[in-house]
Amino acid sequence: MSNVILGKNQYGKAEVRVVRVKRDTDRHEIADLNVTSQLRGDFETVHTEGDNAHCLPTDTQKNTVFAFAKKGISSPEDFLLGLAEHFTSGWDWITGGRWEAEQYSWDRILVNGEEHDHSFVRNGSETRTAVVVGDGDTRTVIGGLHSLTVLKSTGSEFVGYEKDKYTTLPEATDRILATDVAVRWRYNTTDLDWNATYDSVKALLLEGFAEKHSTALQQTLFQMGEKVLNAHPEIDELKFSMPNKHHFVVDLEPFGLENPNEVFFAADRPYGLIEATVQREGAALDEKAWEGIAGFC
Amino acid sequence: MSNVILGKNQYGKAEVRVVRVKRDTDRHEIADLNVTSQLRGDFETVHTEGDNAHCLPTDTQKNTVFAFAKKGISSPEDFLLGLAEHFTSGWDWITGGRWEAEQYSWDRILVNGEEHDHSFVRNGSETRTAVVVGDGDTRTVIGGLHSLTVLKSTGSEFVGYEKDKYTTLPEATDRILATDVAVRWRYNTTDLDWNATYDSVKALLLEGFAEKHSTALQQTLFQMGEKVLNAHPEIDELKFSMPNKHHFVVDLEPFGLENPNEVFFAADRPYGLIEATVQREGAALDEKAWEGIAGFC
Amino acid sequence: MSNVILGKNQYGKAEVRVVRVKRDTDRHEIADLNVTSQLRGDFETVHTEGDNAHCLPTDTQKNTVFAFAKKGISSPEDFLLGLAEHFTSGWDWITGGRWEAEQYSWDRILVNGEEHDHSFVRNGSETRTAVVVGDGDTRTVIGGLHSLTVLKSTGSEFVGYEKDKYTTLPEATDRILATDVAVRWRYNTTDLDWNATYDSVKALLLEGFAEKHSTALQQTLFQMGEKVLNAHPEIDELKFSMPNKHHFVVDLEPFGLENPNEVFFAADRPYGLIEATVQREGAALDEKAWEGIAGFC
Amino acid sequence: MSNVILGKNQYGKAEVRVVRVKRDTDRHEIADLNVTSQLRGDFETVHTEGDNAHCLPTDTQKNTVFAFAKKGISSPEDFLLGLAEHFTSGWDWITGGRWEAEQYSWDRILVNGEEHDHSFVRNGSETRTAVVVGDGDTRTVIGGLHSLTVLKSTGSEFVGYEKDKYTTLPEATDRILATDVAVRWRYNTTDLDWNATYDSVKALLLEGFAEKHSTALQQTLFQMGEKVLNAHPEIDELKFSMPNKHHFVVDLEPFGLENPNEVFFAADRPYGLIEATVQREGAALDEKAWEGIAGFC
Repeated sequence: MSNVILGKNQYGKAEVRVVRVKRDTDRHEIADLNVTSQLRGDFETVHTEGDNAHCLPTDTQKNTVFAFAKKGISSPEDFLLGLAEHFTSGWDWITGGRWEAEQYSWDRILVNGEEHDHSFVRNGSETRTAVVVGDGDTRTVIGGLHSLTVLKSTGSEFVGYEKDKYTTLPEATDRILATDVAVRWRYNTTDLDWNATYDSVKALLLEGFAEKHSTALQQTLFQMGEKVLNAHPEIDELKFSMPNKHHFVVDLEPFGLENPNEVFFAADRPYGLIEATVQREGAALDEKAWEGIAGFC
Repeated sequence: MSNVILGKNQYGKAEVRVVRVKRDTDRHEIADLNVTSQLRGDFETVHTEGDNAHCLPTDTQKNTVFAFAKKGISSPEDFLLGLAEHFTSGWDWITGGRWEAEQYSWDRILVNGEEHDHSFVRNGSETRTAVVVGDGDTRTVIGGLHSLTVLKSTGSEFVGYEKDKYTTLPEATDRILATDVAVRWRYNTTDLDWNATYDSVKALLLEGFAEKHSTALQQTLFQMGEKVLNAHPEIDELKFSMPNKHHFVVDLEPFGLENPNEVFFAADRPYGLIEATVQREGAALDEKAWEGIAGFC
Repeated sequence: MSNVILGKNQYGKAEVRVVRVKRDTDRHEIADLNVTSQLRGDFETVHTEGDNAHCLPTDTQKNTVFAFAKKGISSPEDFLLGLAEHFTSGWDWITGGRWEAEQYSWDRILVNGEEHDHSFVRNGSETRTAVVVGDGDTRTVIGGLHSLTVLKSTGSEFVGYEKDKYTTLPEATDRILATDVAVRWRYNTTDLDWNATYDSVKALLLEGFAEKHSTALQQTLFQMGEKVLNAHPEIDELKFSMPNKHHFVVDLEPFGLENPNEVFFAADRPYGLIEATVQREGAALDEKAWEGIAGFC
Repeated sequence: MSNVILGKNQYGKAEVRVVRVKRDTDRHEIADLNVTSQLRGDFETVHTEGDNAHCLPTDTQKNTVFAFAKKGISSPEDFLLGLAEHFTSGWDWITGGRWEAEQYSWDRILVNGEEHDHSFVRNGSETRTAVVVGDGDTRTVIGGLHSLTVLKSTGSEFVGYEKDKYTTLPEATDRILATDVAVRWRYNTTDLDWNATYDSVKALLLEGFAEKHSTALQQTLFQMGEKVLNAHPEIDELKFSMPNKHHFVVDLEPFGLENPNEVFFAADRPYGLIEATVQREGAALDEKAWEGIAGFC
């Protein structure tokens, strides 16, 4: 009697925490990743009949991540491209997938001013992300980062906005602007110096946030994306999700004190939420590559 | 020189924590919601020029949530439909949006076996979710829940799967199956007894998880969706995201003990991740309504 | 040259996630615990010389938790007492320790109105805690719970407090009172029906919160403790840590609306924090048993 | 009929998120703190009778934090000492208290290689903490930090430990050693260059972790403390709480691969937990100052 069918689906192993130590010399290097592997293909009977013939176990996907790590992890992007190649070339019923990683960065500990060979301290400033989407022979690489928290103590205003009967917000000609930058950018190539590009994009995003007077967080977001697209022809679009982390000027007047934007209360919730895509005009779009990437419009 | 353009975008206020007390009689009722309002429309010059003429402040959206709560909150779905109507009908440059809520449920405290009039204890069993997507005059309602954690201590197996050179997992004819159900379902109507439907869907999901022997989490997921679609013609599809929360049988043999599926280690990461859509055959799809809903494929 | 010495110390394995299934009949039962084992004793040379002769590995402590789970887990208190006995009786250089557990509760899933034999849904209402402190032959048992979130929509006021030049808070004759109850109570016995006592204490705490008009959260806290001590002679003291989770009445006047305590904003931070011990007069105190239990004064 | 009495207690406002911008010149500086104020004294009737005459509202304590921030925040220690002085000198029924802060650090954003005047990026490497305990006229200052995550990819072994019938762990002559350092140290003075001392202690802790071969995490912990005490006579003791964050060598043999400590699985739970106090011999102890500081033995 059932007229119920299976729609889009994928499955795999999430959050495989792999640490790869490169110890060819006394000066070790570490790559610290959180890898998720998800397969797409013909998995209908697994769902409708519980027949696992078309099910490569998630445990096997985990093992594959570890085995591939043995070859070395030069960048999350290259590592994920290797996984994509492996999984899509071995079974005709696996036609694609999505491989994702977070990478955590580590600095060398200084001992008497010298970088130590094998002792590290985690650098908590932001988390780098990478996604490789495989669809048949096509590969799309999406770089990114999140939890890059930035703040301007001046150089930001918010005036001239629409007012309706529910508007009570006073205009502000000088305010704190703060946000946690979460952004992903789509490359139009699969062959690049991923680490150097990442470093450049991050630096440009920071400069884009810092350098211009802001009249809206939307405007600042757009300028950050524009800077990256102008400098990196190998990137076609960026998707941003940035909270407006409100810092309210505390009213100190009841205590006989002035507060010329010196003492602020940093609020948790609610927060503004600004999401936008910044694109290269004329570049081919690729909506499909973004499917299932959480938290961006 | 810039050929950079604005792509898809939305903005608003996230996580407005509103608690509405209905106190018309001594027996109070409470609605406890976390509301996010996001607008879509013509916001180009906000981004490209920092001109806020087309910017209804996120602070105003927050105020509107509170003002509308005054009218009462009979269900999150109806509350969000009211917000959607308000925001899309007032400005020609606001053409749509997405309004989302989590709802937390509360039970009455028992005093001497009697339900108290105005004292409540939070029921932490799952979180109800709702989304209303507005696109011009179209409204789509998406119900859901997350953090519904379920476990079967038997009645689950995993055998007959594909093996390759990276496969080490032994087949299991009796295992624990555990997951945190996260699911959203799309209604084909905007006029319904939302609360009664929610209660029914939740009960059906639990029954669907419990009642049949499982040969794969994918199969169990599909059966859960099938049960809901068969009982609720007003729902056209469900999207599930369910981790396979591994419970490993502990090897007690080194200690001279048998362990016939009695003592388990509950692992955190990695975990399997099963995501699938279960649909009513022939029903119109609505990809657009799902855009930007995090964490479902 | 060093005049540096070792002070108080302990070590062990934290957060062993053990799930014990009782499957003697078709109607299974599950105990779901998060166990921490910490040893105290003569571990000086481990610290000062890196000599591990006096180091029973934390991995061994984990194995012991799993092996002891094989015997069954009737209550967290009895389970921890068994661990304490084992570790303090085997080595003369292990003279005591602290064993701690959180327990998560599960309800049976209803299928067609009947409780299922082996399918469960996690009850998220609060987390039960237990600690056993061993010091030589002495054992102290401390029960507890946390994350029991309660709210009164009326029946609470706050007036008559001290005002100074920094006081701006208006008096409130009717307010929401909400808190997450975290409490631990010290038993004066090691032989009890722990589960029945736990259920009774939890019910009394809820009644104590609900039944009386509150003029201060401190007063409500005290009444909750008093109720428990009056009913349970086997308990000598309770330590509470309760945030005052502020719910602010939203000012709707700018929108031409009245708000007679109907619409509230639930704030995250800052929050009031009330911590107090409620004791049985004349009972022996036991400061030592409380050492190292986080978050209570 | 009640023989129930009030024991130790304190109350206040927790997690006041204050950001202080110093903008006397174009080159701004920011102090970003999370402040908790807790008062101790004669609050008996608040608890037993709900009489608030001896209750300075937590809201007032929050206001005081903001008002005092107006004077500037040169260091969390000095800021908290100011609060302690204020609250203990104004009311005879407030006899002491505890004031605590977390401080988050920010780096200047580089624009074209130059430090920006008023744009900052949060440095996520560790969180600085400070506590001031006031008891009558006595002040004790406790510095600290948490979430300083460090890792050695070699230079760590674990052998020669006690084995019993539950021991299965093989000895390791070369392993990864990783931990999140959480430590608090008690000063024997209230007058110091707190910021310079903090920087020095942090650097010494990192050096102490890095420089010596480790035969046990306990030994490494002790060496870290020893280094600090030897360099800083103004510090009398340090209390550490350090998880042993296990990194397991992955068995790649089933895949025909060797794994000479190159590929690791970073586990979440369970983890070892090492807690110890390192003290200056002969220095006066001060157990009372540590009361109620969570998570240290």
